[in-house]
Order: sequence, then C-alpha cells, then structure tokens
Amino acid sequence: MPHSKMYDAAHLRKCSANYIPLTPLSFLSRAAKLHPQRTAVIYNDREVSWSEFFTRTQKMADALQQKGVGYGDTVTVILHNTPELMEAHYGVPMAGAVLNTLNTRLDVNTISYCINQAESKVLITDTEFSPVVREVLKQIDHEIILIEVVDAYAKLARGTGERLGNNEYEEFLNSGTTGRWQMPEDEWQAIALNYTSGTSGKPKGVIYHHRGSYLMSMGSVVAWGMPQFCTHLQTVPMFHCNGWGYPWTIALLSGTLVCIRNFSPALTFKLIAQHKVGFFGGAPVVLNMLANASEDEVASFDHQVQVMTAGSPPPAKTLESMANMGFEVTHVYGLTETYGHTVFCKTKDDWRDLPIEEQAELKARQGIAYPMMEEVAVINPDDMSALPFDGDSMGEIMLRGNTIMKGYLKNPEATAHAFANGWYHSEDLGVTHADGHIQLKDRAKDIIISGGENVSSVEVENVISKHPAVSLVSIVAMPDKKWQEVPCAFVELKPDADITEQEIIKFSRTQLAGFKTPKKVVFGELPKTATGKIQKFVLRERARLL
Amino acid sequence: MPHSKMYDAAHLRKCSANYIPLTPLSFLSRAAKLHPQRTAVIYNDREVSWSEFFTRTQKMADALQQKGVGYGDTVTVILHNTPELMEAHYGVPMAGAVLNTLNTRLDVNTISYCINQAESKVLITDTEFSPVVREVLKQIDHEIILIEVVDAYAKLARGTGERLGNNEYEEFLNSGTTGRWQMPEDEWQAIALNYTSGTSGKPKGVIYHHRGSYLMSMGSVVAWGMPQFCTHLQTVPMFHCNGWGYPWTIALLSGTLVCIRNFSPALTFKLIAQHKVGFFGGAPVVLNMLANASEDEVASFDHQVQVMTAGSPPPAKTLESMANMGFEVTHVYGLTETYGHTVFCKTKDDWRDLPIEEQAELKARQGIAYPMMEEVAVINPDDMSALPFDGDSMGEIMLRGNTIMKGYLKNPEATAHAFANGWYHSEDLGVTHADGHIQLKDRAKDIIISGGENVSSVEVENVISKHPAVSLVSIVAMPDKKWQEVPCAFVELKPDADITEQEIIKFSRTQLAGFKTPKKVVFGELPKTATGKIQKFVLRERARLL
Repeated sequence: MPHSKMYDAAHLRKCSANYIPLTPLSFLSRAAKLHPQRTAVIYNDREVSWSEFFTRTQKMADALQQKGVGYGDTVTVILHNTPELMEAHYGVPMAGAVLNTLNTRLDVNTISYCINQAESKVLITDTEFSPVVREVLKQIDHEIILIEVVDAYAKLARGTGERLGNNEYEEFLNSGTTGRWQMPEDEWQAIALNYTSGTSGKPKGVIYHHRGSYLMSMGSVVAWGMPQFCTHLQTVPMFHCNGWGYPWTIALLSGTLVCIRNFSPALTFKLIAQHKVGFFGGAPVVLNMLANASEDEVASFDHQVQVMTAGSPPPAKTLESMANMGFEVTHVYGLTETYGHTVFCKTKDDWRDLPIEEQAELKARQGIAYPMMEEVAVINPDDMSALPFDGDSMGEIMLRGNTIMKGYLKNPEATAHAFANGWYHSEDLGVTHADGHIQLKDRAKDIIISGGENVSSVEVENVISKHPAVSLVSIVAMPDKKWQEVPCAFVELKPDADITEQEIIKFSRTQLAGFKTPKKVVFGELPKTATGKIQKFVLRERARLL
Repeated sequence: MPHSKMYDAAHLRKCSANYIPLTPLSFLSRAAKLHPQRTAVIYNDREVSWSEFFTRTQKMADALQQKGVGYGDTVTVILHNTPELMEAHYGVPMAGAVLNTLNTRLDVNTISYCINQAESKVLITDTEFSPVVREVLKQIDHEIILIEVVDAYAKLARGTGERLGNNEYEEFLNSGTTGRWQMPEDEWQAIALNYTSGTSGKPKGVIYHHRGSYLMSMGSVVAWGMPQFCTHLQTVPMFHCNGWGYPWTIALLSGTLVCIRNFSPALTFKLIAQHKVGFFGGAPVVLNMLANASEDEVASFDHQVQVMTAGSPPPAKTLESMANMGFEVTHVYGLTETYGHTVFCKTKDDWRDLPIEEQAELKARQGIAYPMMEEVAVINPDDMSALPFDGDSMGEIMLRGNTIMKGYLKNPEATAHAFANGWYHSEDLGVTHADGHIQLKDRAKDIIISGGENVSSVEVENVISKHPAVSLVSIVAMPDKKWQEVPCAFVELKPDADITEQEIIKFSRTQLAGFKTPKKVVFGELPKTATGKIQKFVLRERARLL
C-alpha cells in the first residue's frame, strides 16, 4: 500500500459517528439533555428552563415547516430583545431556514427593501411596531405570513399595539409539535442574514453559516474565559450581528440569558444585582449612561462584571467610573461581516498601574485577534504586503478566518470586492503597535488625501470634539483645486452654544498640522442611520457642492 | 431566483478568506504572533518562548521535508515528556506528516509491529531507550531515519545512553529553516496515529484528524474554564492520546506547558509551586502518590489546582487528601478512539456539603459529555434504542462527535465494527443516572453471564480488593456446565499475606449475591500490558483451561 494513500483509505471516510456539521443547534440539544432544569432565559418574572426552551423551539420549527417554510427560506423578525427573538435563533434554523433579524429602528422603505430582497416567507414582529409594519406590508412584493408577538411588558405608545393579522406568536408556537426539527446537512449552510446599516448606500445582506456561528461561540468563551452556567445580560440588540452570537454562546455554557426589552441604567443595575450577571456588552453610549447613572438608579453588587464595548473607544472618564462600580471594560472590534467582535483588547497586567488616562489610551486600541480568527492584519492594499508593527505604518485592516460571512446575498460583485486576494477587506484603516495590538485610524473611504498627505478624519474629529461648544462633529473630504482634497467639518453644536466657523478652525489649528485643519466648518444637524451612525456619504455629497 | 438556491449561489462558495481548515497549527501561529515573548515550554531550567518555539518547529518541519518526509508519511517518536515531544506535535504535522507517539514502555516486538504497520520514515527517540531501539531497528522491514535526543537531564541507567545513529536532534533541527511549513489542505487530514494498548490482542492504530484535535482543544477549554495564559503541567504522557491534547490546547491559550521527564511527587509539588501550575491530569495512581507524599516531598502553594483523573474512579481517601492540599479533582472518561477525555464529572454545587464517602461515590461516575462531543449515550446494542436515565438499565456506552477517530490504520474490518450503525462503540457497559451522569459498569467483553444474570466483573473486583491481604485482583468468566459461566478470581497477594482460596470466597460472599461470588480463586502475578493494564484475555484463556 503506497504510504500517501494509507491515511486516506476508503474506510477512513467521514461517517455519522465521527463527523457532525458544526452548528450552534448542537449546543441546545446538549444543554437540554444534560442541564434540563437550569434556567435558559429570564425576562422580567418569566423564567424558561433549557428543557422548556428546547421544547418551545422545536414547536416553532415544526410550526414554521407546517406553513411551508424549509431549507433556504428566510424568516424575518423585527423584535426587541425579548425571549421570542432568542427562540427564533434556534427555531428558525431548526426548520432549515435562515434567520433575518432587522433593526427595529429602520424606516418603512429600508425594511421593505430587505424583506423583498430576502424573499422572506414569514415576518415575526411585535405589535409595538404595527404602525411601521402596516406600511411595510403594502410594499412587500410577495406573499408573507405575519406572526405577532403581543408582549404584556410592552409600554405601548399611542397608535401602537394594533393587531394586523391572525397569527399570535404563542398560538402559532403551540400549533407545532416536538421531534420534527432538523440539523443542517452541511455546516456551510446559511443560518442568519444580517443587513449592514448602510452608511454608504443600500444595505447589504450579510450571510452567516452554521460553522461560523459555532466557532464564534467557542472563540468567545476562550477569549473571555466565560465559565459554565454563567449569566449574560443581552443588552446588545440581537438584531445586531445576532447580539454578537451570545444567544448561541449561552447554550454552549448551559448558562442563562437575561432579556432586556428597553435599556435603562436603573433596570440594568437591577438585573445585574438580581441575577448575578457576569457578562454583557454595549456601545460606549450605554456605558456612559451607566457611568453617569444617578444614585437611586444604581443598585450595588459585589461580583466582578465583564463588559465588552464596541463601536468606538471608551473614554477615560467612563472607564474610571465603570471600574469603580465593579465593571471590567474590554474594547472589542468587529463588523457585521465578521459575526461581530473578532478583535479584542484585554487589559494587560502591566497596564493596571498606569494613570487612567494612559490606560484609556491603551484600551482604546482595537487589540488582537480572537482565538477562532485565523489572521487579522494591517496590510498595504496596493501590493498586499503586511505592514510593520511600528504603530505608524497605516494600511487596511484585513481578516481571514472561519467567522467571516459566506458573502452578500444576491450581490456577487460586492462579495468579490470584499474577498479580493483571499482576504476580507474591512475598509478600515489602522496601524499595528509593537505589541501586536491593532489600532483603527479611519474608514478607508473616510481618509482625506490633501496634497498627497493622508489626513485621518478620526484624528481631526477627536480634536474638534474636545471643544466645549461642540456636541457632534464629522469630517469629510472637500474637493480643492490646489490640494485635491481638504478637510471639511460638519458640526452639531450644544444647545445655547455660540461660536463661529473661524473660532473652530483656530481651535483646531492649535492642535493639528496645517494640512489637517478644516478649511470649512458647516453648522447644523448631522444625517444619521437608524443605528445612529453618521452618514458620511451624505456629508461628502454636501461638501462636493459647497 | 428560486429561494432554495439563493443562499447557495456560486459567489457564496468557500474561499480562503472565509474558510480555513481547522487545525491546532493555527493556535501556534497565533500565539507566536500575538504573544511572542510569553513562555511556551518549561523544562527544568530551560524556557522557550512562543516565538522561539514557532521557529524551532518550523525548522523541524523543514528538516523533515529535506529528508523526504511529506504528506501522509508517518514519523514515530519514543520520548519522555520532554520539549522535543512537544515540538514534534507541531513540527511533524507542519511537514504534512502524521505524528505517531509510542508508549516508552512497550517491548521490542510491539514497537517493531507498530513502526512496520505505520511504515514510519523517521524514528525520533531518546538515547535512554537505545537498548530497546537497537533491537527494534533489526526488526524494521523498511528504511528508517533515526534521530536521537541526547538529554542532559536524563538519569541514564547502565547500558543506556548509547548513540545508534548520526542524527542528533538539535543538529537535525538546525539543518532546517523557517518559512517552509504547510497548513493542512483539508481538516480531515490525519495529524496523529495512536496505538491502542492491546488488552485484547494486537494494538490497533487510531488515526486522529486536524479537525478533531482543534475541536478537542476548544472543548477542553470550555469544559474546564481554562483561562488564557494558564500553566499546564504535562504529567499525562504525551504518547497517551497526545497527552489528551494539551500540547495543542496550551497554544490556544498562549499558555505554558511544563514538561516532566520522570514523575515523582516531590518534583510535581515543586513545579506546581514554582510555576503556579493551574491544571494537570493523571491516573489515580499518580493522585495516590501525591496524596501519600511525605512531608519533605510536599511543597506548599496557595492557589487552586485543577486535576483531571482518568482510568478508574478516584477513591474517597485520595479525594479527601487531595482536597486538603488544594487540589480540585475531576473524574474524566475517554478512550484512545475519542482523543482522550470526552466525558467529565464536574462537582455539582450541592455535592460539596455531602460526606466525603458520598462525594466520592458521585465523583466516581464518569459524568456528562464534553461540549464538543455531539452525543454520549447508553444504548441497547441489540436494537440501538436509548436506555432510560434510571441508574439501572445497563447498555453500551456509545458516542458520536467530531472528536472521534478517522478509523483504524489498515483495518477496515475493525473500523466498520467500531462505527456500526453510525455510532462509535466503546465496548464499555454503563448506566445513566437521573441527572444525566453516565456511570461505567464494565467492559462489554468482561461481563460474566451466569445463569442468565449479568455479573459485573468490576463490582466483584471492588469487593475483593477491599480484603487487607489482596494487592490486585481481576475477575473473568470461567466456563461452567450448569451456569454457562461463573466468576473466577485471579489475585495478587500483598507480601507476607497468608490466606486461602476459601477465605477469599467466604469474604466475597458476605458482600455479594451467590451468583456473583467467585467459584475459583487463583493466586499469582497478573499479566499486564506496558501501561500496566491487566490483560484479561490472557486470564480468560487460563480460566478456560482450569
């Protein structure tokens, strides 16, 4: 027998004993079998065990299949972080279908665009959104089944709460039975569809596969050192990269997911103390609200809580207040295309003795690759060469790994562009420091090239945002005859602030090189997406016409 | 576009940005890139950083390739737990080859059999084993390259230490260069070959794949809650299921592996205290030696140490002594075919208040499936039905999951037999308790069927082993005209013990039903394998002839 064939003989092929498609659905069946009585989900005074949760999700899978939903179909949900959305993370893929969570703050046109592109067969929504959903239904170009969650805990505003169809969620669930769900046949099968927020045009449908969601959970536990049976507070919206995967990760740990419908500092503190929450994530604005909570909002707790923050670096003052309250804050970085966090900046032992300002500067770095990520590198996009770890050489942050999307739905061009040269191109620009920590400098398309020099819009924004009169600032390129491009500032002022364009420019010039100083300042409200991101493409267009 | 094709469109195929074969080699390149200065391996006063370790393993991979070793070739090693064996866990697969670790205590014939079956191109060994290796080389039926480790820390006995060839390990390593190693092309590729210990005949070559070794590491970290940068003491021989995977797992954590060439309680305590070892594993005999260490052997330490024990349940007295010394002992279960531990019995919170005897009884259970294991179940082998969780219904322990071997080398029949009906058959008999914990009752082939009643040989052995005169006991079936089979006891007595066959039978009868009591007792030394396992097949043959 030739040795090269010895290990590849026919009897050594994969079989069902030694090869099972990687999927987070396995986490659930294991938790339900081995820890049936442990609490899976908590929502106000409602607690569901892993055994009950498994039963409910099996019923959902069967109920969906009875409605004709199957392999490769899309189920769209517009829900707050309530147990139904956690259930959909299992029930939908257990029917062979793909879970499409939409941002609850999207407008009618965007929602309709997504549902039409995804050809969704079912829309599961909360009656709080009925005013929007009523309009959406008019724009959907195909048949769709509406399933409505009527939540007793909803604080319904005027005009909301109306029932638009005949399928109430609990009734729908109970029309299904157990034992009729399916594992994916292939781990490359789609599990979720997450639309990008569209800072630069139409949202793109990012497809996640079962393999990636499985490995994301494994990697998160390894990176964070999350113990079995721990409690995760789901502050990150589950419509946002599937809440960074925690609805699945928590099953791997047979832990508990605490749902929170509407975020408030008081409720967050209460839940942390009451359920001994060990982990949660949130944007810096969430952290800021916790750090600045009033005395009667804060509930004390005596355990350490791990907090991940993403989107932008946490300011020193927030870090300090959070630490004093018992929170250990870790900065993470990722994109919808990378299943959420994929780079993390864990505090090093020798940082702890530094002044808080210096700590904040180090923690503001995006950090190092998660364990399941193959490579995260700062690369020169012109020749694909890796740049040195000098904290100075700026290139594009590129990634390779098993927690990168399958591609964009119905968009071969964008997929090919994103995966050019065998790397996922983040379009974020950054540097690598000597210790291997990556720091984000700017979005590629936001860099301004003035007289051949790169101007980081983030750097200019950081300077101007320190001016006491400024509430929000965005810097984009403005065409210029002499310099090709020059920085242009769009500024939202604080209420009652009184300041001129020249004062802003003068203030900037004290801290920035001349070519980095904005040549023009425009005052007024900034255009934003549903998630609150500034739409630079709108500003760029405005700057072009100035 | 029909919806069933939407998520499977051509542009959504795997590419090198989003699909990387799962392999523990990725752990190493990540550790070397992100934590280059952290210590990877400690051996006496030798410390190697992850950066140096990566360099050395790349050199090994290249040196092997220069010798003609490549895809699907076997490299056999006979080494103690020294850094060279840790290096071989990476260097060999980085050459595309398969690492075959052999038990250092095997006899010449068995070693030769394994090397011939595996067609090994290279044999890496320690000069301590020269007397055996000299004889082995005479029996190898093909060309083989010998590479010798000359270890300054070896305590060489008379006749050992002779050099048999011209390739010294360090010189060989330095003949290689960096940058010429390979990732597996397919995660199903073989990474290791581990021979079973052969309690029932010729050893079988169990093949591990890269995917399984990757997932084993992930699962171990999740199950144990091992933190990043932790220190693992490699007491479990790396030739035994690749030390249950920890040479690879430690790279996932960018942690430190402490090597120990020859186990002794004093050295173990010293290393634990000196390097703040957080984790290690060992057979009950190892734990027993630690628990009974003399005062001058014990070094005190003030951190908690997690210990896994496998092979047989830890006795109450050992558990108690270990707990008092700061060790938390967890019982694990697995087989060579399952990459080592795959079932674990973590102490439940409500066990801690029980008397130590009861705790020991609960901890003696094998436990629940590791997180990466799909299913571990007690199954009726006749109809493949799952048995109830009643602590009483005995069936065969069967397993399915991604950390099950590819199959047996050059043995399609044994592979087919092991994987019958899509499950791996452990040939161990057990029950499942109400809490889902599996308990091993016997090896399938060791069960005795007397008058239609099952007699667990383990149960009878447990009783007789309590007699103060008995050192070791083994129970097998003896043919009987009336009852078909009856239990027969083979007993090794303690030095100076003076006891008759009838006394042993009488003692047994006080604690066992009549049909479980041995009808015959034979005194004398028991036949054992190189790993100290009793060869029941030899005893069964003897009993047949009585």
